[in-house]
Amino acid sequence: MLLLFLVWEIIVSLPIAVLISGGGSNLQALIDKVEDGSLDVDIRMVLSNRAGALGLERAKKHSIPTCTLSHKDFGSREEFDGEMVRVLKDAGVEAIVLAGFMRIITPVFLCAFPGNIINIHPALLPSFAGAGGQTDAAEYGVQISGCTVHFVDEKMDHGAIIIQAAVPAIPGEDVEKLTKRILQVEHRILPQATKWLAEGRLSIEGRFVKLTPSKLVSSSDSKAEKAEIDIDFPCLINPPLEEGF
Amino acid sequence: MLLLFLVWEIIVSLPIAVLISGGGSNLQALIDKVEDGSLDVDIRMVLSNRAGALGLERAKKHSIPTCTLSHKDFGSREEFDGEMVRVLKDAGVEAIVLAGFMRIITPVFLCAFPGNIINIHPALLPSFAGAGGQTDAAEYGVQISGCTVHFVDEKMDHGAIIIQAAVPAIPGEDVEKLTKRILQVEHRILPQATKWLAEGRLSIEGRFVKLTPSKLVSSSDSKAEKAEIDIDFPCLINPPLEEGF
Repeated sequence: MLLLFLVWEIIVSLPIAVLISGGGSNLQALIDKVEDGSLDVDIRMVLSNRAGALGLERAKKHSIPTCTLSHKDFGSREEFDGEMVRVLKDAGVEAIVLAGFMRIITPVFLCAFPGNIINIHPALLPSFAGAGGQTDAAEYGVQISGCTVHFVDEKMDHGAIIIQAAVPAIPGEDVEKLTKRILQVEHRILPQATKWLAEGRLSIEGRFVKLTPSKLVSSSDSKAEKAEIDIDFPCLINPPLEEGF
Repeated sequence: MLLLFLVWEIIVSLPIAVLISGGGSNLQALIDKVEDGSLDVDIRMVLSNRAGALGLERAKKHSIPTCTLSHKDFGSREEFDGEMVRVLKDAGVEAIVLAGFMRIITPVFLCAFPGNIINIHPALLPSFAGAGGQTDAAEYGVQISGCTVHFVDEKMDHGAIIIQAAVPAIPGEDVEKLTKRILQVEHRILPQATKWLAEGRLSIEGRFVKLTPSKLVSSSDSKAEKAEIDIDFPCLINPPLEEGF
């Protein structure tokens, strides 16, 4: 029985869905990490609330099933969420990664995947929650901005924080440049957080996310603490990235 | 005439006051940088609103004049600020560094030193403004916190941002540990920001602080961008620290 459990633990990948509304570059980062063997999840479906989202094409290129559900076709947020839940459950999805999904989700959706929904936000939360994270940061004139992966709860951009990355900002610079810099680290921390989720290494205690150390690579933490990553600007990522991310 | 101006520029140190309410470890960091020759300012006075503040003792040890003015002895914030202005102007002070000064200042004080008042706050503003920066960050469960030096305006912890430093936080850890980590970088960025102010290299455009590159050390920026500083944890400081900070 124990042997069976161990075998199951090794061979069964967490079935996830990635929800998008646009370009899906974070989806691409997840696909790339799955394909290079660093991230062991089964992307069962990419769901978009916007027809023609570029991310849907990315999914098709990698033979990932897609689904478009327009929120405009539903009478309420709850009805829209209910239909998403039905589609995703039918596909066997157990966990959700929101990667640029520009809709507020309701308890209908939250309760269908308890403790298994994560989101990436392009700012160092709690600064600059809401739709315009990068623009708001640029307009505020911060010297440091960044991004956050967090569990989703009933408030927008509010749930317990899994990982954050800080990047330099230059007050007065074009917001596109800051957005691009933040996106480079988004592509690192979202696959990393997804891996931790898939490995069952994240536990939530109140507002605190506890990360269980890896069983496989005992030296990874001390190595990663130096925050040596191949990005062409200085940044700070915490918890540190592990090998392969 | 040009020669006279150049000589004046070299020999006259900006006369500043440091305002404190407590231990004054940031004051000590400023004193240390003045004494090792990295920071060319004339600390004319250390003013505390609390009698017995440890920072007053630090000042006395280095023969810096001190003044204690208790806000409780005044009928209003404006009266208290008016007396501070009188004392500081009498001492020839032209710029103010708030280093753990736990009072909200009024336009009476702001208008006496226009564009020449800076403050250090133990959080990555605009996150966690207010008196309990470190505690609020620890309770929120952020993975990254830090500190900010900013110009002071009429709103609390709100003015244009000069420099920020990001440090790792560990959700659930003792707030004292986070406070200590933040303090280590506070002691680096406050003297650095004070130097930029004293050299007249900071200009405010709306909410943006523009830093004029140093005339003296043209290579300092590219060197500092690597964020190599002798602190025993990874951190990100922007703009990068220059030689000596």
